Amino acid sequence: MDLDVQVTSNQLAQSNLLRQVLADVTPQLSEGKVATYIPALARVSRRSLSIATAGCDGVDASAGEASTRFSIQSISKIFSLALVLNLGRGEDLWKRVGTEPSGDPFNSIVLLEREAGVPRNPFINPGAIVVADMLCSILAEDPVKKLNELLSELCGSEIASDLEVAESEAAHGYKNASLANLLKSYGNLRNDVDQVLDVYFRQCSISMSAIELAAASRFLASDGYDPVSSKRVVSSADARRINALMLMAGTYDAAGAFAFEIGIPCKSGVGGGIVGIIPDAASVCVWSPGLDETGNSLVGRAALASFVNRSGLSVF
Amino acid sequence: MDLDVQVTSNQLAQSNLLRQVLADVTPQLSEGKVATYIPALARVSRRSLSIATAGCDGVDASAGEASTRFSIQSISKIFSLALVLNLGRGEDLWKRVGTEPSGDPFNSIVLLEREAGVPRNPFINPGAIVVADMLCSILAEDPVKKLNELLSELCGSEIASDLEVAESEAAHGYKNASLANLLKSYGNLRNDVDQVLDVYFRQCSISMSAIELAAASRFLASDGYDPVSSKRVVSSADARRINALMLMAGTYDAAGAFAFEIGIPCKSGVGGGIVGIIPDAASVCVWSPGLDETGNSLVGRAALASFVNRSGLSVF
Amino acid sequence: MDLDVQVTSNQLAQSNLLRQVLADVTPQLSEGKVATYIPALARVSRRSLSIATAGCDGVDASAGEASTRFSIQSISKIFSLALVLNLGRGEDLWKRVGTEPSGDPFNSIVLLEREAGVPRNPFINPGAIVVADMLCSILAEDPVKKLNELLSELCGSEIASDLEVAESEAAHGYKNASLANLLKSYGNLRNDVDQVLDVYFRQCSISMSAIELAAASRFLASDGYDPVSSKRVVSSADARRINALMLMAGTYDAAGAFAFEIGIPCKSGVGGGIVGIIPDAASVCVWSPGLDETGNSLVGRAALASFVNRSGLSVF
Amino acid sequence: MDLDVQVTSNQLAQSNLLRQVLADVTPQLSEGKVATYIPALARVSRRSLSIATAGCDGVDASAGEASTRFSIQSISKIFSLALVLNLGRGEDLWKRVGTEPSGDPFNSIVLLEREAGVPRNPFINPGAIVVADMLCSILAEDPVKKLNELLSELCGSEIASDLEVAESEAAHGYKNASLANLLKSYGNLRNDVDQVLDVYFRQCSISMSAIELAAASRFLASDGYDPVSSKRVVSSADARRINALMLMAGTYDAAGAFAFEIGIPCKSGVGGGIVGIIPDAASVCVWSPGLDETGNSLVGRAALASFVNRSGLSVF
Repeated sequence: MDLDVQVTSNQLAQSNLLRQVLADVTPQLSEGKVATYIPALARVSRRSLSIATAGCDGVDASAGEASTRFSIQSISKIFSLALVLNLGRGEDLWKRVGTEPSGDPFNSIVLLEREAGVPRNPFINPGAIVVADMLCSILAEDPVKKLNELLSELCGSEIASDLEVAESEAAHGYKNASLANLLKSYGNLRNDVDQVLDVYFRQCSISMSAIELAAASRFLASDGYDPVSSKRVVSSADARRINALMLMAGTYDAAGAFAFEIGIPCKSGVGGGIVGIIPDAASVCVWSPGLDETGNSLVGRAALASFVNRSGLSVF
Repeated sequence: MDLDVQVTSNQLAQSNLLRQVLADVTPQLSEGKVATYIPALARVSRRSLSIATAGCDGVDASAGEASTRFSIQSISKIFSLALVLNLGRGEDLWKRVGTEPSGDPFNSIVLLEREAGVPRNPFINPGAIVVADMLCSILAEDPVKKLNELLSELCGSEIASDLEVAESEAAHGYKNASLANLLKSYGNLRNDVDQVLDVYFRQCSISMSAIELAAASRFLASDGYDPVSSKRVVSSADARRINALMLMAGTYDAAGAFAFEIGIPCKSGVGGGIVGIIPDAASVCVWSPGLDETGNSLVGRAALASFVNRSGLSVF
Repeated sequence: MDLDVQVTSNQLAQSNLLRQVLADVTPQLSEGKVATYIPALARVSRRSLSIATAGCDGVDASAGEASTRFSIQSISKIFSLALVLNLGRGEDLWKRVGTEPSGDPFNSIVLLEREAGVPRNPFINPGAIVVADMLCSILAEDPVKKLNELLSELCGSEIASDLEVAESEAAHGYKNASLANLLKSYGNLRNDVDQVLDVYFRQCSISMSAIELAAASRFLASDGYDPVSSKRVVSSADARRINALMLMAGTYDAAGAFAFEIGIPCKSGVGGGIVGIIPDAASVCVWSPGLDETGNSLVGRAALASFVNRSGLSVF
Repeated sequence: MDLDVQVTSNQLAQSNLLRQVLADVTPQLSEGKVATYIPALARVSRRSLSIATAGCDGVDASAGEASTRFSIQSISKIFSLALVLNLGRGEDLWKRVGTEPSGDPFNSIVLLEREAGVPRNPFINPGAIVVADMLCSILAEDPVKKLNELLSELCGSEIASDLEVAESEAAHGYKNASLANLLKSYGNLRNDVDQVLDVYFRQCSISMSAIELAAASRFLASDGYDPVSSKRVVSSADARRINALMLMAGTYDAAGAFAFEIGIPCKSGVGGGIVGIIPDAASVCVWSPGLDETGNSLVGRAALASFVNRSGLSVF
């Protein structure tokens, strides 16, 4: 592709910036706490660190272990949401899931009950479970297979779930089982509880690298259309809405602090990955498995702060 | 038994009182709403009405359809609690379940989550599910079989669960499945979620008449010892504690109103039954399937108010 | 009075019991924490200890520093409530204040807001503030003067507020000012916020001894009529209702634990006093200023447990 | 100024756009409900409508009654916050006020209590009251005088509070008095409750037109520096933070819906005004007094949606 040739110097500058960002945060690598609720996650080294960007101009850059795959966990919620919107079911969806900030820990059953079974947004667990339920209803085939096909197409490499992780999630997934049953009791789950949970656990266990995640979320920085794979994923308006939701609810109970300190839409996962979107410029993915007390990658968060600070990028 | 002979005139007076009570409330029989969440409950006539008392002196009395059996539902929570205490496991129990008034609707997940998996008391659903879990751990045999044996012994007739009701409960039991999974996620359920729920649903589906329920709860009015079957069910101190809990938490969100208006410990079920205890005097059971908006038998509640009013009995 | 003569042996036995109760709990005297939010309360010695009973038969007994006066604080809520009922305004009152257990710390604004300005019961601060507001509306004279007259009549000695304490309360009373303003914003306060708070603070600062408090609350054990002063304070039904409310909501967030462990209606104050009612038998008052983490007298609570245990008295 | 001459055609296009926006929403003018809690606000006609923009390039445009002043109410919270940051007290401020979305109605005491006196953000009432308290501590002179001077400087006309409105607010301000007293009880108010409330009520009663408000908030679209008055109000980083907070918490309980539908930082007031910020482009102000059920201007909200839709402007 022509793009590659003409932007070499841009790419060099970008890679240089990313190396500086990693140097900024390396001293903090010992501080976070790796998620240990399932063995497959606990096994990852806390010193892992990577960053990758995917520009709207097609220019990619990266630094650190950027090809090492990790469990994307809740970052998958971006893609399952995009898939429902891609399938034209936004209108149905926004009747069953809200668009408000969560304002409480990411698993909270309290909010779900207070709101009679309508989760506040699609990025808290109950909201993502409703999204998974919609995919089960809409698609004839396995929703996770479809999701992996979309991701493979967007990042140009074969993406799959890690079934060992998925099984571990299922074996320890009592809180999600509680949420799914509560949704079912309110009539906001159409399919079998076990079937929906199986989809949800397999979607969370998808493995991707920072390079792949940056590439796969580039469409959100490009008005819903990925210029590299030439695929329109969602409409321009829906891309803006996903970004707005990420800003307000993408990083659990720390969404306010992320918006205040970092100022770009982000979505994190307990595997230590965080995806950030700079509209009309680039997507960025950082990974470092040590988590802070809000469940977000401690070093990843610091790296994003350094990145926006050094680059001057912000939506505000 | 000698008792029967010497108290005939007492029994006559008592039966007369109970007939007056039923006459007082009959005009309200059309007001309540029969529980319809499962077909087996919805089928019962709203005009059913009965009352029975079981005296500490061995004198029983009744009026209305007092031999007709109904689904005891949450009233079973008294007996499963008594069985755990009877088996000497009170110390363990009160570490896993609290002794506070609930102050919120009977199914509320909110409270359970706020208190990190320790239900406020054994009469809200999550508390009763923990009690069922303890019975699963303690007993080698089926806990519901054991419970039915205890009830049979206390009321002198064969008591059993209605399996059609139990299956219906299970098929619609998403809220209880949600609660059980949440308890499991907090480590406050030791056995398999499905096993405990099976016990819980079968315990709720036990069928008894007003006469049988009054007899079966007489031990609570008699310091834990049933003078008729000559069975000590719980210690005197535990009988007082069960009564205290019934007063504070036995009638869902209306416990305050019951204590204020009626003034005796009560435990109700969505099948329309209510058991009341007058310490050192008698137990009383009323049944009428129409429920008020708090989930308590509307006419049963009125009947208890009339009963304490006419008899002058109250713990205060 | 004749009563005095005929009950001497009873009184001796009773005094003996009370001395044993104090002996039981003396070892715990160093454990509690004296309330320090106002200097006048902080000054009291943690080693103070007293107990007094006032029998329905007119027999009084006491042990320890039973004539030493202390700040009755929230115990005053019993008497202001009784005064409103005495003045025939129960119907109005129960529209503006609920009869439910509080289930949350005693000052909680949360519950008040959730319930749109109707406090859950008259024993949490906002409920007592509404009661004070009613007294301001009903009475031509100063409500606290009237309250002190009632108390003086019931215990046969001159009762008054400690104005130093009242001023201290007012100077630190921001939380109560917050509650009163919130009630006003919901339209559940008819008089001037400052006027009602002044009444409330002066009512809380009434000084009484254990002997006086036991005598003043004897009417609650005697169906609303005080046999010694020959004064009917409230109707028999209202006495029962006050007792029911005390049991459910008289000891802040520990009401459940009190009912479970002690089993009689109690009302406590942060001055370290607790009044208990044994219907048809006696009222009892204990005092020890050290508080436990629930705001109740630590040693007073233990003394009541010992008292009911040794005497076998309980409502259940 | 040179700017004026070279952008005439731009201004014409802009004015045209604004007229179209007003035409879009005029049919909805009868739908909203004018705030009636104080007479001075209730008097305004529901059919009032205006819009104004202030470009980073110095170009201003407007349509409708854009010179008519109205009560800015909560929009004043932007300027008091900016003033504290301008005075270099950001570090202190963010210890006493959070940066999280509110997730509950704008007056909620619940959140304040749950978080022990630290308001979730400076745009809910308790947060703004803490900001007012800081201004009282920092400034020797009257904070509202200082605020009006800043606003006058930024919009080039004399700005003042409407004292009739301020008095009305004070007379009906029980909920704010409740909040201020609760803050005081938690030690998060350093000055006298009445003094802080006086500042707060007079700040809310400032009168400005849409043209003036757009001009006064232009600095937020221009990295903290107003190019027209040549005044740096806050640092570039602080401007971004204010915008982030506006997006998350600027429109009461509808913040999520605003971000999702409109996609730019907004701050609304119950007087019917809404200010929006398009970073690096312009500020915009709409006014129409009819409110929707979330307390935001119903027609103003629709006008902003039309404006971003027609102009293609969004931060995402």
